[in-house]
Amino acid sequence: MPLSTLRRTSVDLVPRGQHQGFTEEAVRDRRNWVERKTQVKLTHISSFAIPCSNFAGKIENPIGVAHVPLGIAGPLRVKGEFACGTFYVPMAANEGALVRSYERGMVALTRSGGVSARVHVDRNQICPAFSFPDVHSACEFARSLPLHFEQIRLQAESTTRHGKLESIDCYPAGRQVMARFLYSTGDAHGMNMIVRATDRACKWIVQNTSATEYLIFSGLEAEKRASGLLFAGGKGKKVIAGASLPAAIVKNYLHVSPEQMCALWRRTVIGNMHAGALGYCGHFANGLTAIFIACGQDVANVVNSSIGITEFELTAAGDLFASVTLPSLTVATVGGGTGIGTGRECLGLLDCCGSSKSRKLAEIIAAALLAGELSMGAAIAGGEFVSAHEEYGRNRPE
Amino acid sequence: MPLSTLRRTSVDLVPRGQHQGFTEEAVRDRRNWVERKTQVKLTHISSFAIPCSNFAGKIENPIGVAHVPLGIAGPLRVKGEFACGTFYVPMAANEGALVRSYERGMVALTRSGGVSARVHVDRNQICPAFSFPDVHSACEFARSLPLHFEQIRLQAESTTRHGKLESIDCYPAGRQVMARFLYSTGDAHGMNMIVRATDRACKWIVQNTSATEYLIFSGLEAEKRASGLLFAGGKGKKVIAGASLPAAIVKNYLHVSPEQMCALWRRTVIGNMHAGALGYCGHFANGLTAIFIACGQDVANVVNSSIGITEFELTAAGDLFASVTLPSLTVATVGGGTGIGTGRECLGLLDCCGSSKSRKLAEIIAAALLAGELSMGAAIAGGEFVSAHEEYGRNRPE
Amino acid sequence: MPLSTLRRTSVDLVPRGQHQGFTEEAVRDRRNWVERKTQVKLTHISSFAIPCSNFAGKIENPIGVAHVPLGIAGPLRVKGEFACGTFYVPMAANEGALVRSYERGMVALTRSGGVSARVHVDRNQICPAFSFPDVHSACEFARSLPLHFEQIRLQAESTTRHGKLESIDCYPAGRQVMARFLYSTGDAHGMNMIVRATDRACKWIVQNTSATEYLIFSGLEAEKRASGLLFAGGKGKKVIAGASLPAAIVKNYLHVSPEQMCALWRRTVIGNMHAGALGYCGHFANGLTAIFIACGQDVANVVNSSIGITEFELTAAGDLFASVTLPSLTVATVGGGTGIGTGRECLGLLDCCGSSKSRKLAEIIAAALLAGELSMGAAIAGGEFVSAHEEYGRNRPE
Amino acid sequence: MPLSTLRRTSVDLVPRGQHQGFTEEAVRDRRNWVERKTQVKLTHISSFAIPCSNFAGKIENPIGVAHVPLGIAGPLRVKGEFACGTFYVPMAANEGALVRSYERGMVALTRSGGVSARVHVDRNQICPAFSFPDVHSACEFARSLPLHFEQIRLQAESTTRHGKLESIDCYPAGRQVMARFLYSTGDAHGMNMIVRATDRACKWIVQNTSATEYLIFSGLEAEKRASGLLFAGGKGKKVIAGASLPAAIVKNYLHVSPEQMCALWRRTVIGNMHAGALGYCGHFANGLTAIFIACGQDVANVVNSSIGITEFELTAAGDLFASVTLPSLTVATVGGGTGIGTGRECLGLLDCCGSSKSRKLAEIIAAALLAGELSMGAAIAGGEFVSAHEEYGRNRPE
Repeated sequence: MPLSTLRRTSVDLVPRGQHQGFTEEAVRDRRNWVERKTQVKLTHISSFAIPCSNFAGKIENPIGVAHVPLGIAGPLRVKGEFACGTFYVPMAANEGALVRSYERGMVALTRSGGVSARVHVDRNQICPAFSFPDVHSACEFARSLPLHFEQIRLQAESTTRHGKLESIDCYPAGRQVMARFLYSTGDAHGMNMIVRATDRACKWIVQNTSATEYLIFSGLEAEKRASGLLFAGGKGKKVIAGASLPAAIVKNYLHVSPEQMCALWRRTVIGNMHAGALGYCGHFANGLTAIFIACGQDVANVVNSSIGITEFELTAAGDLFASVTLPSLTVATVGGGTGIGTGRECLGLLDCCGSSKSRKLAEIIAAALLAGELSMGAAIAGGEFVSAHEEYGRNRPE
Repeated sequence: MPLSTLRRTSVDLVPRGQHQGFTEEAVRDRRNWVERKTQVKLTHISSFAIPCSNFAGKIENPIGVAHVPLGIAGPLRVKGEFACGTFYVPMAANEGALVRSYERGMVALTRSGGVSARVHVDRNQICPAFSFPDVHSACEFARSLPLHFEQIRLQAESTTRHGKLESIDCYPAGRQVMARFLYSTGDAHGMNMIVRATDRACKWIVQNTSATEYLIFSGLEAEKRASGLLFAGGKGKKVIAGASLPAAIVKNYLHVSPEQMCALWRRTVIGNMHAGALGYCGHFANGLTAIFIACGQDVANVVNSSIGITEFELTAAGDLFASVTLPSLTVATVGGGTGIGTGRECLGLLDCCGSSKSRKLAEIIAAALLAGELSMGAAIAGGEFVSAHEEYGRNRPE
Repeated sequence: MPLSTLRRTSVDLVPRGQHQGFTEEAVRDRRNWVERKTQVKLTHISSFAIPCSNFAGKIENPIGVAHVPLGIAGPLRVKGEFACGTFYVPMAANEGALVRSYERGMVALTRSGGVSARVHVDRNQICPAFSFPDVHSACEFARSLPLHFEQIRLQAESTTRHGKLESIDCYPAGRQVMARFLYSTGDAHGMNMIVRATDRACKWIVQNTSATEYLIFSGLEAEKRASGLLFAGGKGKKVIAGASLPAAIVKNYLHVSPEQMCALWRRTVIGNMHAGALGYCGHFANGLTAIFIACGQDVANVVNSSIGITEFELTAAGDLFASVTLPSLTVATVGGGTGIGTGRECLGLLDCCGSSKSRKLAEIIAAALLAGELSMGAAIAGGEFVSAHEEYGRNRPE
Repeated sequence: MPLSTLRRTSVDLVPRGQHQGFTEEAVRDRRNWVERKTQVKLTHISSFAIPCSNFAGKIENPIGVAHVPLGIAGPLRVKGEFACGTFYVPMAANEGALVRSYERGMVALTRSGGVSARVHVDRNQICPAFSFPDVHSACEFARSLPLHFEQIRLQAESTTRHGKLESIDCYPAGRQVMARFLYSTGDAHGMNMIVRATDRACKWIVQNTSATEYLIFSGLEAEKRASGLLFAGGKGKKVIAGASLPAAIVKNYLHVSPEQMCALWRRTVIGNMHAGALGYCGHFANGLTAIFIACGQDVANVVNSSIGITEFELTAAGDLFASVTLPSLTVATVGGGTGIGTGRECLGLLDCCGSSKSRKLAEIIAAALLAGELSMGAAIAGGEFVSAHEEYGRNRPE
């Protein structure tokens, strides 16, 4: 079928509007166009207070905003390197009992003296792939790339003020070589920054080595994908949060014994292994998603950020030591949805707006997730899961 | 440390307010309390039009809503069993170029005649675990459970009008037995429904068999967790969408040849294998998250829903056959955030409000994801990824 | 380059010899040819007592046998459904301390009263893939295949007396459909049997449905490959073995406390999760390989057979409950290397020769692996790993 | 139950014999003991020519040897960095058609000009775990360990002449820290060497840092376990082998077209993804096991060595480019079963005896596996799998 024929098919494109479509008029006109097209009245979508010019760089073809109910959970006492104090965490979701469950864990943790939290490493990665005519030249390239590191670094960093190229590891496979570029990116999520920097470096590599071509993404980078290699790190912040909870608090606030929590852990680890799960957790995804939506994060990052491990351990004193390890938490306090509207307000609640705050945010999130793991774990171990959900509206009998 | 001492520590709880805290006053008072506490003015969070009573069952401690910029991508022609027609897909995100990228793929697919989509299975699962004194009695239980199926089914279905228990598979491990309860759940996501039903069944089982106790979740259910077992199905809908794109359209709309797309696929499959990724995709998470936020879904389900496979294949005629296979897409058109506010409006744009619509929604989402895979794949294969992002604002030089 | 040129290159083929090369002369002549070619004298390779005709169907181009040192570990008391009694297990390996380590665990288990073992399921699978022109017809096929089950079963079973086709599950992906054929295969490993049967069935399917072609293996079957889906079963026997060990025995024979074993388990589970391991074990591969080589098994099956889970648990009484769960143990007591030479003799030691014995063998192997898990776990938990290995010769200081 | 009671149970231990049981008499007496115990005559097990003293350090409680039929496959032309020439590869197995299948691929590769092979990295790892009282001190330790590297290296290397400690990476998780010790180990497999070295280092660390205790294995090392992290390397040699096969050779020797091979690859990649396989291959385990048994390797290493990727690609000229990537091939040419008996003879056939030969062996094995992937792939793609197996005896109709 010739293209001319194909083009004759009428295709009704979304109107872009004038001035790139980010004026109040363009947004309204587009919304009206959609309303006419679908016969749906868009009342709620048009309920927002930011100027439409703010949509630029965040969304195309804007017609308004999506709303997600926002609650607040706390108090959560965090004893981190960057986050020190008591926090009230904004969470956006459409799932009854979620905020109440996290809140319960937060109170138990705060009563226990708070959560110790640390960011172990903080960097981002992108892994382009280079092509070669044969295995021999691919391996030769992989061996010799370190010799060019300084030149490649200069190329990469010429495109950015904030990104620093820290190292490159080569992974030859067949006759291609995947190269893992590791960067520090300051407080930005930095994916766009390092893509641009690496693209520049790749162009230099193809011109100056035996590589015949490159793909800017090889798949090895595990961007927004669930990958086991994330445990070895490289995509965002590795954060750990832990706390010791006295048996009396576990009993009074979570209605179970430390022994029951440990038995739950042991048994459900088996279930997760059978499922072929990456790592182990109760429901990292719930807390991460709720906080990410509230705080203007790139929510799709939940997929890599939710890879991690929860651990419950009985201490010699009979208390419960609980921790979460998150090897790939990708959060930002500048860029994306962090600087305007509800994202900025929610970050403000945590005193996490702007530069030098992303590690603080990471520590708070890890502590919040620990609360959620404790609370849900206790609900399951204690047999209260169903009754708790019925009380908070998710499980009202039909 | 005695509990009495622990309790003496002052802990400043979030005010619940009167009437369970879901009146306009309670929400406003709570918001004001947060503002005072944090010295942050919450202007945007209070910009919404739904009555506060609507928050009940969706969020606790509500203070307002989170906003996510909403754009519209299309046209997307779908030739499904349930979704037949041309759609404009609402997507909410804070990531420039995302909507434009999906739109590009949608137009190419529509020009190619549209996307064939099918829901292969539609069910939900929950996997409780039962304890036994030894391996022998655990295996005995696993063997004999099928004999009790009818009684168990009656127990489970006594709690729900919509959930139907289809089968139970037993997975003994050590001296526990995990049992996989498979349900059809109609148009609801149904997790709460089947948790309650299964909880009832478990109580019966513990009373009537040698099982000594149960956990309502064993971990095997892979709820909101990235698990390889999801490919074998059971958590939500298995949906497949595919299309054949003429080489001329691939070239004109995506700026690459079908051969380039297939080479990209082959090479990045290797990268994903090295990363230990579950399945293979370009960026399912981006499209899923954007549509889930827009359409009032339980967004944390992105973690299981994004497990899947994208495939690009060169046809004998030199065209491109592209498909996505999503074994665990969990979407709903009733319950949660689907019935009110922006969620309902966005579902309305797709004619997916209310009962009998969840499979239609699943087919549309699968087709939209295919568009995103094509567009991002082409941007990488054609070397246009960086320039495209700079044009749409994500990658503006610093 | 034309083939005629390529063929001109001299290529020195291994001599096949007369009568298909399985006479004493042919084997000797071939060995002599190899000796001349490589200037290596093959004294040990020619030390064996079976007639060379026995090599037929087991190896091609035979030149003799490989030797692996064979030791005996026991006593191991097993309380299975098929294996009841005390066994001495033959193990072949080149790794000092291995037999001693397994033996230590076996004695501790026997002193504790023995190992409870059960075969939960026993079947084998093969998963061909069928091609279709589009997604629609692939899904249609997947839905309608159950209707043809009886005809397909007749085709498949027409080629075998022992294999019984139990079910077929369809997994559509893109425009192909993978179908999982599950068989019971009696005491044979049965892979060849079910390949042939399924091949016949596939031919019928291509002739009688819309499938355009098939591949006899789709990859889904996980034959001799490490795959997470093996936990859901289908490839061989699912076997579970467990035992309760009194604290005094753990202390006296393994030199650790039950608490130390449980702490080891908890901590190394974390390590295995970080490594992206499938399941959890200490060293299943060691015991499996040693027993498989001894007992004439298809040793490559160790790759799928070693996927499983070891569990250590502290009982309420302060004892240690330990178990292994092996979802995909593929063993045979007929066919392959089980009927002749050392394989037959070793199976004889376990009274596992010939038909009706494969489940007994599976239970013994599971019990033996449990012994190895206990012993190695204790060596690590108690800090004796290095000294134990030095005593038994592996770690003699250089 | 008191231990005294437990001990009263009669337990019949395997007789150790005099002089540690490695004399001819001790082996014979033990074999006789087993024969009496089981009423099985052990004729074949006693057919071997090495002196029994050779069993020391390789097996305990020896009673003889296990035999595995040994064939020879070739010619295989390898163009490696260490292996250059034409090889005849010894393979031990009980599986008809296996040697013939590998041989077919070897001839096709040799006719195509041979296989390019390279060892990219060559090192071994062990990952102990250290305990801490809380998250804070664990992270502090992980940060500061690099400062002590030189002292730790001195401790570790004090126990070995051949092992060199190259680096240590820390992976904190909860309140423990796993540390990955990377060593170069010369031609030995080196696991015992580096265990001893690391044990010494760990003792120093516990004495000189805040670590309270250590486990010599954390699980992260992936020793003889199927783990996704092996793709990132560290356990043995990363080897790559590839070749370009002219279409005419593919057609004449493998009976398929390059296009068919690529279609097979694409389709079965999907199947492997569905199965949750680590990487992708046809049957690495078959070739690895057969060569490992023949060459006196530690056969249990097949489990980690078989993790890898096979790739088939259509070249611009219409030929087939095929490769295998093996990130974790653990082979040795000194120690274990490599220095005596059939192991030494088989290594001799490849000119791989003794020091400075392990990389050569690795390159030959990778090339041999490539042959197996081509041959089996072609048998499946061309529909000849069943008929080929019937010809070589595996599939003789019952």
